[in-house]
Amino acid sequence: MRRRALGVAGFRFGAAACSVKSEGRPDCGLIVAERPAAAAAAFTRNRFRAAPVEIAARRLRAGRLQALVVNSGNANACTGAAGYRAAERVCERAARLLGVAPALVAPASTGIIGVPLPWRRIERGLPRAVRDLAPGGVWDFAEAIRTTDAFPKVAACALGGRSGRATVVGVAKGAGMIAPDMATLLVFLLTDASLDRDTLRRARALAAAEFNSLSVDGDTSTNDSLFLLASGASGWAPVGARSRRALLDAVAAVARELASQVASDGEGATKLVRVEVSGARTEADARRAARAVGESLLVKTAVFGEDPNWGRIACALGYSGARFDPERVRIWVAGVLLFRRGAGVGGGRARARRAMRGREVELRIDLGAGQASARLVTSDLSHAYVELNSAYST
Amino acid sequence: MRRRALGVAGFRFGAAACSVKSEGRPDCGLIVAERPAAAAAAFTRNRFRAAPVEIAARRLRAGRLQALVVNSGNANACTGAAGYRAAERVCERAARLLGVAPALVAPASTGIIGVPLPWRRIERGLPRAVRDLAPGGVWDFAEAIRTTDAFPKVAACALGGRSGRATVVGVAKGAGMIAPDMATLLVFLLTDASLDRDTLRRARALAAAEFNSLSVDGDTSTNDSLFLLASGASGWAPVGARSRRALLDAVAAVARELASQVASDGEGATKLVRVEVSGARTEADARRAARAVGESLLVKTAVFGEDPNWGRIACALGYSGARFDPERVRIWVAGVLLFRRGAGVGGGRARARRAMRGREVELRIDLGAGQASARLVTSDLSHAYVELNSAYST
Repeated sequence: MRRRALGVAGFRFGAAACSVKSEGRPDCGLIVAERPAAAAAAFTRNRFRAAPVEIAARRLRAGRLQALVVNSGNANACTGAAGYRAAERVCERAARLLGVAPALVAPASTGIIGVPLPWRRIERGLPRAVRDLAPGGVWDFAEAIRTTDAFPKVAACALGGRSGRATVVGVAKGAGMIAPDMATLLVFLLTDASLDRDTLRRARALAAAEFNSLSVDGDTSTNDSLFLLASGASGWAPVGARSRRALLDAVAAVARELASQVASDGEGATKLVRVEVSGARTEADARRAARAVGESLLVKTAVFGEDPNWGRIACALGYSGARFDPERVRIWVAGVLLFRRGAGVGGGRARARRAMRGREVELRIDLGAGQASARLVTSDLSHAYVELNSAYST
Repeated sequence: MRRRALGVAGFRFGAAACSVKSEGRPDCGLIVAERPAAAAAAFTRNRFRAAPVEIAARRLRAGRLQALVVNSGNANACTGAAGYRAAERVCERAARLLGVAPALVAPASTGIIGVPLPWRRIERGLPRAVRDLAPGGVWDFAEAIRTTDAFPKVAACALGGRSGRATVVGVAKGAGMIAPDMATLLVFLLTDASLDRDTLRRARALAAAEFNSLSVDGDTSTNDSLFLLASGASGWAPVGARSRRALLDAVAAVARELASQVASDGEGATKLVRVEVSGARTEADARRAARAVGESLLVKTAVFGEDPNWGRIACALGYSGARFDPERVRIWVAGVLLFRRGAGVGGGRARARRAMRGREVELRIDLGAGQASARLVTSDLSHAYVELNSAYST
């Protein structure tokens, strides 16, 4: 399938096959800004942070970036000092080819953990990626950073209105919150708006929150990275609360769409699962409850089997740590109320089973204990998940 | 296979098929003491506690029990006030048939959640279980309380020595820390020793600790219950620190053996996984680390695939919350050192892969941060797990 060109003013995109993945598919992507762009990022909290994450985090301190060098097929994580030098070499090579200061180039990697990064191969392939740089190459870039993703993940949002025009484009990589070997979630959000430091940070926080309500297998990768770059090439800047709100909404919408794409591409996933918790005493309680339900293997296998097994949901709530009175909890599966006043509701099971046949299943819980709420996007757990993850590095 | 008679002085065991499970297999078991036995128990901390757990917890307060009525095929959990009355009726019926005070009879249930307990069927079947009560009927009882367990779980330990003779016998039910629908772990530990209140409680705590270091899918059931009864029928009582230690060791050994049996029968398990964490700053850190590794789906699928994927173990440690310096962590898979000083150790992979072919795989981690340690017993994650749990209640 040939996808139409997609871009965002002030950025160019490139891709190349560098044989990091042995299959000869594109495995190296470039994002290059015409001039240094305002930049913010969010990184994994895993104690084992991959070398590219360490380097990117350091370079982000200045708040500006001009290029991102991304490879799939190798996470460059748990690779010691050699891994760190390898990532720096790749960045230096890209900087020279692009005529950009090395301090403005950040790396990102995804793939297998603990295997030395074949940096020479990337160095050899980079000139091709640079030669092919194109303003409309978003899809090519998205293609190059895939690992086990079933499809490339791209979303875009155009801001109109009186105050001017700007675009937000997002690309994500991640089949499951964690792809095999945990070299997982990479997110690149780009806008041609001109953003001040404060707006950039708020947008970054909103986007990160969308991905924090996403969970496929509960693992947190060594490589998870979210980058937000603003080129300012549209000439538009949000001035005043209203246009600022519009920009933030656009960034959040793009992030949310990408998070849904990632969840529905959860490894071996057959269904997108939306867990909605309301009536919690506190937000922390709501999040605990949503997470326990969304990460329960028993709930996820039940959804795969299209089984409206509310008992497994109740059980997960019960050990979540959230505070509630079991008598006041209500549980809906695919829109059908199945549990209230401490016991099952008769008659809804067959209806719920039919409603679960779709690609999306909503699990809604009212804890009856307060006003706080939370949501989580995840996927079901299928045979294919076990297949993918037991065979990956062999 | 006909198993030899096994018993413990002062107790009789019975079983009957009551059609709780539709297959007509034995699904109701009785343990009856000749006279009221000293009793202690540990119950699930799930906020949704099944009706039989509520009743048993109340009756245990007096510290004595004479009979346990156990059914498989139905958890009697999330069944409201009707479920509570149903469990009381079953106990009352057993009490009448046995000529025992109802306050000395405790129930336990395992099976599907949220389905009304067919208490009339159990009432009709109980006379057969009472008629068949036999001192050597431990295996029959173990058979009756199975749900998805691939085999009945029994362990025994005889105490000899100068100070006298006593026996500890244990029976457990649970394929996975959580069987489907979470109606899971039931443990019955019986001894013919005479135990004072304090020794009984210490033995209960030791036994519970063994099961708390067991995890198959991380869920905590609505029905988990551990009972410890001491008949005193052997005439032996531990007097002094040494015989007391011998008794406690015997109870812990029986509990540990049962926990291993449960883990190796984890639903769809092909391998028993022992996670050993040492060098942690605190015990809590050690437990966090062991739990993150032992419950990681990516680690469990890698073990199933006999893949010495230490990167997934490092990643799980990284998000576990345990404090350590990544440079000081060491990871062994099946006895082979694969990670140290922040990077992989070359050459061990093939050897580790061969060593993973057995039925047991040890994952050993030294966090290099202190003196505390913890261990966890779990299983791998196979296709059969998904098969069992997606099809169970349909």
